[in-house]
Parts: sequence; structure tokens; C-alpha cells
Amino acid sequence: MRDVAVIGVGMNKWGELWELSHRDIWTSAALDAIEDAGVDHVDAMYVGCMSGGLFVGQEHLGAMLADQLGMGPIPGTRVESACASGGLALRQAYLAVASGAHDIVLASGVEKMTDVDGAAATYALSTAADQEYECFHGLTFPGLYAMMARAHMERYGTTIEQLAHVASKNHANGAKNPNAQFPMKVTPEQVLASPMVADPLRLLDCSPITDGAAAVVLVPLEMARKLSDGPIVRIAASAHATDTMALADRAEISAIESTARAAEQAYKAAGIGPDDLSFCEVHDCFTIAEVMVIEALGLVEKGQGGQAAASGLTALDGKRPVNPSGGLKSKGHPVGATGIAQVCEVAEQFRGGAGERQLDDPHWALTQNMGGTGASSVIHIFERVGREAGR
Amino acid sequence: MRDVAVIGVGMNKWGELWELSHRDIWTSAALDAIEDAGVDHVDAMYVGCMSGGLFVGQEHLGAMLADQLGMGPIPGTRVESACASGGLALRQAYLAVASGAHDIVLASGVEKMTDVDGAAATYALSTAADQEYECFHGLTFPGLYAMMARAHMERYGTTIEQLAHVASKNHANGAKNPNAQFPMKVTPEQVLASPMVADPLRLLDCSPITDGAAAVVLVPLEMARKLSDGPIVRIAASAHATDTMALADRAEISAIESTARAAEQAYKAAGIGPDDLSFCEVHDCFTIAEVMVIEALGLVEKGQGGQAAASGLTALDGKRPVNPSGGLKSKGHPVGATGIAQVCEVAEQFRGGAGERQLDDPHWALTQNMGGTGASSVIHIFERVGREAGR
Repeated sequence: MRDVAVIGVGMNKWGELWELSHRDIWTSAALDAIEDAGVDHVDAMYVGCMSGGLFVGQEHLGAMLADQLGMGPIPGTRVESACASGGLALRQAYLAVASGAHDIVLASGVEKMTDVDGAAATYALSTAADQEYECFHGLTFPGLYAMMARAHMERYGTTIEQLAHVASKNHANGAKNPNAQFPMKVTPEQVLASPMVADPLRLLDCSPITDGAAAVVLVPLEMARKLSDGPIVRIAASAHATDTMALADRAEISAIESTARAAEQAYKAAGIGPDDLSFCEVHDCFTIAEVMVIEALGLVEKGQGGQAAASGLTALDGKRPVNPSGGLKSKGHPVGATGIAQVCEVAEQFRGGAGERQLDDPHWALTQNMGGTGASSVIHIFERVGREAGR
Repeated sequence: MRDVAVIGVGMNKWGELWELSHRDIWTSAALDAIEDAGVDHVDAMYVGCMSGGLFVGQEHLGAMLADQLGMGPIPGTRVESACASGGLALRQAYLAVASGAHDIVLASGVEKMTDVDGAAATYALSTAADQEYECFHGLTFPGLYAMMARAHMERYGTTIEQLAHVASKNHANGAKNPNAQFPMKVTPEQVLASPMVADPLRLLDCSPITDGAAAVVLVPLEMARKLSDGPIVRIAASAHATDTMALADRAEISAIESTARAAEQAYKAAGIGPDDLSFCEVHDCFTIAEVMVIEALGLVEKGQGGQAAASGLTALDGKRPVNPSGGLKSKGHPVGATGIAQVCEVAEQFRGGAGERQLDDPHWALTQNMGGTGASSVIHIFERVGREAGR
């Protein structure tokens, strides 16, 4: 398979975008990515979207958005893996370029979540869990992650104060991100004083409901070297793994096994380990999720995830920065777009364009995007390379 | 890219399967395909489904069905292109094998459409059209295809009697297919006497609402030669093209341009033309669709599609058999599964296992699956090859 690189990224301010439609939001990000890439067309496009049907009454998204872009008859493919739909769109686009099927491919994600009311949005999101064995009994995502949090607290002594530090750290990063939905700083005390949603998770432990899109352009690495002036974002690994749909079927609910499996494959393919990573963008849909994910990625030992934010390890100036973009928590979580926005952050950091949240000379980065309670995980590893073939 | 072959197929009786759930239907077909292939595992799976959200309140289908199969942590990917979701799943699975990313891949499709009432099903299906510019104004699919039929009749003199012959021909074929939902013969007179749905389309011009699934197993051609005793189904071409989402944006609504574009690419890739095809399985969601599609595929001249069924050209014993399986019209149309079921028919015909509807020594076959009013089309061409490398 051919080496593949990201040469353009597009993302706009996320939030409650009532004046814009699903297609408007997506098209804006897609055109920005194409302009940023400096190409005049794409050969194919992939879009990740969790539920166009339940959120906006629109399926057939590949064709609809290729048309919206004015680029029909190019193939437009929509993929779905709940909240990991964006990461999965990147993976399918990567395979399309790596295989030689297409040269210039747009990978994108979108979700318009605020056209329905809160109850309908909660229902739509719940379809990422097992409808017959979980949702039918009244479970929704705050409840599912609350159970995982309780299990982690019971097993490893993780505390609600430690979880509050995850939120505080990500909001501190998001405050430096002009595209973030909630770019305000919050203290751990404010998190602990926010309204309870599902014990032990409070409002500020939860990522928000968001409208947003993100897009990136992929090409073969050799083409990227010709088109690009600056540092190039090489995709060093792409991995995708699944786990049981229902929490009740798992041996342990305080761990994200699909992330561990995908990470193992990704590290092997990239030829690196967690110690080599300059930073990670991970799926902090709830504060406890970041704790479990950094353990699954091997950034910390199993059971040590709770201390990571509180100790400063995962801060922007820590030894292992996690979610420099602000993460889902502060940047927002338009479910289909999240996995692509993570890649936008990688490109911004590699190019030195991340402004106040810029890291010092990042070389390797990892993105981890997951669906449901981790029934699916998609992981990519990126390497910053120069224009010359020798790297 | 590597050559790819279909080595196993699975499909069950389609219909109103009230005693089975979405996951039951899918798992049965998937296990049948795996057993038929003679393999003990798959490395990845793809599923096409149009709207798990609106029909059964279940998204995250890749992870859910990989789990249901008992094969997690394999990657499970759901793709959607409305009624072409099955064809698109085949295409993505094909790319996964051709690229070398995976060796043994399940491509599948499923839709459980009868758990909601008729109005909800009509709404769910309408999300394959342009929600903001078509559905919002009250259009649903019978109305959209009725407009296309009127345009074709006006332009080429196509008659309602000719359309009735399409239904009659496909029911004659479906009567020989034990998996068909409506395996009864109908005469053109019965079609013309059936209730009007959207003038000029009557009830028997329309494909039904169906529960069903289908699955096939893909491997590299070289592996197929080792695993298979009989004829091998080589995928000679895979093509996917789009058109405008809304009918109003098209220069002509009596043609399916996305099919013509995809066909052009597919014939070129396979190195054959329409005259070489032993038979085709096409997307006859309404009788007029088959008429427009066989023109787009070059099986008949533009404007001559109406006569094809009435003259016997496309009959099982005609010069250009179309829809030997019974097509969507008689076999049923569980939208996500349709594109995969077409491939099951190709394999059955190539292996000589099509019973009463068996064609004489078929060598090349084409499947055409489309979404909406043709905003997306996916076409595959298959060649029957022997076990020996020389073919």
C-alpha cells in the first residue's frame, strides 16, 4: 500500500449553530480543507455521520454532500460507527488512497445535533448503545459512563476530584482554541459544584451537544511532497477494533478493550510506542473516558489514569499532553465530526499553527476516536515529516 | 491492487419477518455466507444499512453486528448510500481486500423495515431524497419516480402497458426464487388493474417494504483458487458515481446519469461492453427504474427501454436477461440488503445453483444498485473463472 499524507484541513467555530443547516456546516469545512490543500478538486469523498436520519431527517449523505460540494459525479461514501464515525471516515479514505483506488480524497465528518430537542438528541445518541439490551431498559450514555466510572473508582481508588481535573485541564486548553464551543476555563471546584447528571458524573464531566463539521484532504505521500511547502503530516498507522456492544457482556467495564486492541495494532504498524508520542487527541466524551483511554493507550499504567490530569502529566506543558485542542469536553462533540477534528489539531500542531496552545516541536501524534461505550475504536498515528524523501 | 473473488453467499427468505429482529436476520445471512465460504473466521466486516436509526432505533451497526457474529475485535464498518448501501458495502469490502488491508472480508446488507408503520417507513425512505428541497414539500419516492416515468413517456412514447410488462417479467422470475417475498406471477393486466399509487405508477409497479439481509465473503483471487472446488466469481470491476440529490437540479429526469457514469468506468475496468454480459441484476425499485437503468447500462438504446420487457428481450430466455432473481419487484427490497442480494444471484448463477431460473452457461454479469432517484449508483462486474490461474 502507498504512504498517505494529510495536506489540508478545515474546521469552523463549533457550537449551537441555529442559523446554519447540516449541509451548510459541512460544506464550509470541506471547502476550507480543499482550499487549505491547494487542490482544485477531489477524486472521492468520505463523510462520517452518526445519525443523519434521527437528527435532521437526511440519509444518503455521501451523494448529498458530494452534490453540495458541486463535485458530482465523484463517489461520495458515508460511514457510521456512532461517535467514531469521523475516525472511521478517515480510515476508509486512507484505504482508498493507500490502495491506489483514488489520489485526492476528502475525509470529513459532520453532525447537526441542535435541530431536535434535548430528549430527542439523548434518544438519538442512545442508538450508539445496544437498543435491545441497554436502551430498552432506560439506559442512556451518562448512565453507562457513570457505571464505568463507579467501577474504576471501586477498583483503582479513582476520585471525583481527579475526574474534575480532567475537565479543568481540557477547558484550559480549549480556552486557547478559537473554534471551541465552550472556551471558558473551569476550576475543579466548579466541576464538583455543577449539577449532578448521573452519579458520579456532573454536568461539567460531560461533553456537550454540538453542531459542527471538520474535513481533511488526503493524498499519496509523494504527491504531498510536491504540493506542500511546510511540514507534512504522514499517516503512519490506521487501526480499527470492536468490543461487545453491551457493557454487560464485558469481563471488565473499567477498561476500553477496543482501544487497547487498536492501539496495539497501530503502534506495531508505526513502529513506535507510547513513549514516542509528542501528544494525543483522545475521546473524552466524559471525564472518565479520558482516564480509561490513556490507560488503554499505555500512556500510564492501568489504574493510574485518574492521577494523570491532577498531577499535570497530561497538561499542555506536561510530559504527555492529552487533548491540546480542548478535547470533546471544551471544543464540543458533534459526534460524526469529532474524529476528523482530532486530525485537524494534529495538522495544526505539526505545522506550528496552533497559536497559544502550540506544543514544542511535536513529531509523533495519536488520535483515538470511539463509539458508544467503546464498542468501536479507531486509532491513527501521524508523523511529521519534511518535504525531502529521506525524512 | 489484488484481484478479488466472492467465495461464499448467504441469504434467507425475505418478507415481513415479524418474529425476527434486525440482528437476527443479519446474523443468519452472515453465518450462512461464512459457512458457504468454508472459512472459520473473517478479518473484517462491512454492512450496508440505510437507516438503522429510523427503522429500528439502532446505529453503531458495524460494532453491533461484529459482536453479534461473535467475532469482535474485528473491525466492523457500516456504510450508507440509501438504497445503494449494500452495493457500497461490497465496494468498500472489495477495496479492503484489493488493497491488502484484509484477506477475508464479509460484505453484507440488512434492513428491518416492518417494525414501524407504513407512514414511518415512507418517511424513513424519503430521507434518501433531498430533505430540504424535496421531502419538505411533501414528495416521497412513488411521486418522484412517477415524475420520472411521465418524463420518459412524454419524451420516448413509453407506455403504462410496457411498464406493466416489467413487473410481470420480474414476478415470473421471482416465482422461481424460493427466497422471494412475493413469488407469485402477475399478468400485465393485473398490474394495470392494481390500485393507483402515484399516477402513472400503480401498486404492482412498486417494489415492496421488506425485512431481509444478505451477505457474501470476499478473498483474494489466489486464495479463492485454493479454497474453492467449483467456478469462481471474480470481481472484474467496481465503480461508484453520484448525481445531484434533487431531481430539479438535473438537466434531464428521464435518465439515470450516475448509472451511466459508473457503467462507463466499470466496462472500461473490466475490459468488456454490454454485449458481453450474460445477465444483469438491476435496481427496479419501480418498473420505470428498470427501463431507465437498462438504457443507462447500454443494454438498449436510449428511449428503447420501455419495449425491452414487452418484447421478451430481458426475459429469462431472452437475449439480455435482466433480474433473473425476480429483482426488487418480486424478491423484495430491504434497502440496505438489496445490493448484496444481487451478488448472491450472480454467484448462484455462476455456480449453476439457481434452480428453475438457471441461465445457460453465464460468464459475465453486472449488478447495478442505486440510491434515491439515482443520486448514487454502484456497479460491479463479475467474471466466472476456473480454478486454474490461466482462466
